[in-house]
Amino acid sequence: MTQKLSGIAASNGVAIASAYMLVDPDLTFEKKTVTDTDAEKQRLHAALDASVAELQQIKAVAEKNLGADEAEVFEAHITILEDPEMVGQMESKIESDKVNAEEALKEVTDGFIAIFEGMTDNVYMQERAADVRDVTKRVMSHLLGKNLPNPALINSEVVIVAHDLTPSDTAQLDRKYVKGFITDLGGRTSHSAIMSRTLEIPAVVGAETATTSIKQGDKVIVDGLDGIGVVDPSDDDVASYTKKGADFAAQKAEWDKLRDEPSVSKDGKSFTIAANIGTPDDVAAVNDDGGEAVGLFRSEFLYMDSSVLPDEETQFKAYKKAVEDMHGKQVVVRTMDIGGDKHLDYMPLPEEMNPFLGYRAIRISLKQPDLFRPQLRALLRASAFGNIAIMFPMIGTVDEFKRARAVYDEERQNLINDGVKVADHIDVGMMMEVPAAVLIADKLAKYADFFSIGTNDLIQYTFAADRGNEHVSYLYQPYNPSLLRLIKRVIDAAHAEGKWAGMCGEMAGDQVAVPLLMGMGLDEYSMSATSMLQTRSLMKRLDTKSTAKLVEQALDVETNEEVADLVKTYMDQLND
Amino acid sequence: MTQKLSGIAASNGVAIASAYMLVDPDLTFEKKTVTDTDAEKQRLHAALDASVAELQQIKAVAEKNLGADEAEVFEAHITILEDPEMVGQMESKIESDKVNAEEALKEVTDGFIAIFEGMTDNVYMQERAADVRDVTKRVMSHLLGKNLPNPALINSEVVIVAHDLTPSDTAQLDRKYVKGFITDLGGRTSHSAIMSRTLEIPAVVGAETATTSIKQGDKVIVDGLDGIGVVDPSDDDVASYTKKGADFAAQKAEWDKLRDEPSVSKDGKSFTIAANIGTPDDVAAVNDDGGEAVGLFRSEFLYMDSSVLPDEETQFKAYKKAVEDMHGKQVVVRTMDIGGDKHLDYMPLPEEMNPFLGYRAIRISLKQPDLFRPQLRALLRASAFGNIAIMFPMIGTVDEFKRARAVYDEERQNLINDGVKVADHIDVGMMMEVPAAVLIADKLAKYADFFSIGTNDLIQYTFAADRGNEHVSYLYQPYNPSLLRLIKRVIDAAHAEGKWAGMCGEMAGDQVAVPLLMGMGLDEYSMSATSMLQTRSLMKRLDTKSTAKLVEQALDVETNEEVADLVKTYMDQLND
Repeated sequence: MTQKLSGIAASNGVAIASAYMLVDPDLTFEKKTVTDTDAEKQRLHAALDASVAELQQIKAVAEKNLGADEAEVFEAHITILEDPEMVGQMESKIESDKVNAEEALKEVTDGFIAIFEGMTDNVYMQERAADVRDVTKRVMSHLLGKNLPNPALINSEVVIVAHDLTPSDTAQLDRKYVKGFITDLGGRTSHSAIMSRTLEIPAVVGAETATTSIKQGDKVIVDGLDGIGVVDPSDDDVASYTKKGADFAAQKAEWDKLRDEPSVSKDGKSFTIAANIGTPDDVAAVNDDGGEAVGLFRSEFLYMDSSVLPDEETQFKAYKKAVEDMHGKQVVVRTMDIGGDKHLDYMPLPEEMNPFLGYRAIRISLKQPDLFRPQLRALLRASAFGNIAIMFPMIGTVDEFKRARAVYDEERQNLINDGVKVADHIDVGMMMEVPAAVLIADKLAKYADFFSIGTNDLIQYTFAADRGNEHVSYLYQPYNPSLLRLIKRVIDAAHAEGKWAGMCGEMAGDQVAVPLLMGMGLDEYSMSATSMLQTRSLMKRLDTKSTAKLVEQALDVETNEEVADLVKTYMDQLND
Repeated sequence: MTQKLSGIAASNGVAIASAYMLVDPDLTFEKKTVTDTDAEKQRLHAALDASVAELQQIKAVAEKNLGADEAEVFEAHITILEDPEMVGQMESKIESDKVNAEEALKEVTDGFIAIFEGMTDNVYMQERAADVRDVTKRVMSHLLGKNLPNPALINSEVVIVAHDLTPSDTAQLDRKYVKGFITDLGGRTSHSAIMSRTLEIPAVVGAETATTSIKQGDKVIVDGLDGIGVVDPSDDDVASYTKKGADFAAQKAEWDKLRDEPSVSKDGKSFTIAANIGTPDDVAAVNDDGGEAVGLFRSEFLYMDSSVLPDEETQFKAYKKAVEDMHGKQVVVRTMDIGGDKHLDYMPLPEEMNPFLGYRAIRISLKQPDLFRPQLRALLRASAFGNIAIMFPMIGTVDEFKRARAVYDEERQNLINDGVKVADHIDVGMMMEVPAAVLIADKLAKYADFFSIGTNDLIQYTFAADRGNEHVSYLYQPYNPSLLRLIKRVIDAAHAEGKWAGMCGEMAGDQVAVPLLMGMGLDEYSMSATSMLQTRSLMKRLDTKSTAKLVEQALDVETNEEVADLVKTYMDQLND
């Protein structure tokens, strides 16, 4: 029978395919005493052999579809299963303790995991512990006769159904066969949602009962435009959603025509549409999707993807590549934003009760010049090869900005004195994400060359609600007049000093927010590359004078919902 | 040789006395093999006997000075030391393993602690684990010939020197002999600081090296006015600090004359000086110190001092007592602010990554009417017996306030329908501590009868800095123009709708802040009872027109320090 699920629209488009359940089966078992230990050892070996065979098959497919690097992990798993020491211990355990193979497997692998995990300062051994855990699951599934999902083996079109998607899940998926996602958990800013937009795969997240309502092989429709999942759809459903998908594809084709157009409003005002990126390799997609700038280059990848502190040279090369590949278009690099929920194995940070209110970002940079100065030097050196801008994250006071800028000025002078080439002018600005900074934006605008509003953090601090905490998720209110007033304050303060203001949070590509942001005169809109063309298309239809009137109304109502309704009514009138 | 320590002035006044080191000695030991096990068992028994004798002495003193309830814990400790099972295990361990008494003591008590702590859902057993830990420390100190501090035995005037003071430390102190505190850790809002102000004991906190610079019995001066400690002072030091203390006492006597005076500015404007309290018993001190109202009654004590959810009747009695004892002066009760750093054993809350940005206060009340409704009913019933006002904590949006008020209106109507007497009018207001609420204060003022600014939380959210995290303590900036602008916004919004605005955070009694708050027209100042008269005295000297000009200047500078300097210059001119 047809069943409808409702969730959050995370990535545009419509998909219709068979469900692939990316859900771990129940692998609990009972410890049993066995009398025929030889038979039990045979059971163990059969499960081990089946696991090895399966891994060889997965490895072959992964090598072909995803490349040798991605396939390597499966070779590591095979090696573990063939380790005579570990298998020997399992056999002895069955023989001496007369336990079933499941128990022997568990006890022996638990021992190995504990030893590996005990080496807490050894990242390599920590990863080995994870490998043993994965392998144990596979052998256990064979012992219990259950099916473990093997996403790397998918070879027909599917919709992935999962509780939530982890980065390691998505790494194994072949874009060719995966047509849609539907998950129980997550919001618009979860990993699953961001990944689906990056891969341009229609997705519904936060559907709550997806994994319990859907069975392997069920026909499923994912409507990523309105956040709806349809299980076991009727022929009418299939027809109407097929049309909806085709209409969207046609619209997308229209948007694609805007690739080389400027971003202008109906009344001819110019804006900049930019992208948020995580590595220099992401620049290709920004150019493909017609981006006019990179509004946020998160420099954390340099720190997170490394097992040691990246040195000045490593950083310089990464920034240089990004600016060169952008061919003169501006790249705004945010200095290190470590801390909060981002940790580094090689740089221990204090244990904190509330890490989002703790020692992070510029607060670390100002206290640890050994981290900050090499990054500034790398950025300054890269400035000779393209159009770079620098911004500081988590600035809360005028004093912090002046101190950060002073370190920058010093390193700039040091390089010049050493005869190193740097650009004549570099925009040095700051993120606007701490409420205190917004409230004193008029003063900060005298020192900063630009502001970039980071809505994710700004919202969580303004509403005092952790964006990752489901119990207070109702307080994620991007359209609330209280937040809009802060945003307007930032833009007005920048313009009063002849500076520019951008936004690099989720909100900059949100189709409800864009009319409001245009009405407030926001200059740069930085978002996922895949949302840029749709936003450029929307901009062309909007007039800045009438959106300014819309803003006046929005600032004077009381709730998030009232503002959303105002925008909806405005857009409906536009469409008439 | 004389040594000066500098820290944070936590509680006014000057004390000169001998140091009492409230510091645990180093109780580490080496595991040894013994040959004469009988001698070792004798060592153990000697230490056990000495511990029991000491505990009996402490118990007798505690009974006399602190009452039977406080002394009970020592009886429990004696019972543990006389437990034949535990002592028997230690003897066997010495006999069979040939280990020294220290090792036997440690191994056996570790075992008991592990068992008790393993019963995680049993609060009683958790407390027993803490008792065994305490007792072990005492016996170990005797085995190692070290002195454990016994604060309950203090019988001459002392200055307590500690790393930090815990509530259980302060419970054992006799006010008669304790003349001052000096601690390594803590800020103005730490437990040590708040406790010292409540007890009116001069204190310096955050002196960093107090416990390493001072030795038991050293003569120490605590200057709680300027945050200075002097170790081994010269005769000149003693003379000048004795004078400073006497001058302060004289000034305090002057303040005391204002007990029954109204709170008015030099130009005749009236304000309200009120107190923050934690239990109905605190009302006595509020009246003693000339308080005109209770500006914040933290209702948490009802929940925290109980092992079950307090029922409507228990709450009603507490609120009734408070309003009756205030004889018609207003008592503002804040509804439950559980969550964040406050937890209840009988009401499990979700584990959160950032509890200060989580499920707490009104967010819980709105979701759990089973908690909220009985509290509102108790408050409404108490309103028939005095002047009560109600405020909701952590309101962030107009919607939240309207929802909370709707529940209140419903319960009020229910009581009226049942013929229960309630006051004709009750002020129903809200805390202003979430930045989003401040930004939409103009709208909230249409629905709330008053605002009370909670500066501790408002500062931590505005600057995105946990107030308990030393790594970001530099961002506790109460005078920063960004924060002052928020405060002014609250006051202006209230006045525009004919409502009143108060403040119940640390800042309301801060002598640098008061001139600014008066200049902004803040109506009610709620603080520690002991700060009220000093504030009333300050108010009499200040003119609201000239402080309003001071505010104008303060709102237009850039940093916390500049504002502090402005106020200092202003006050210096006043004193000339």
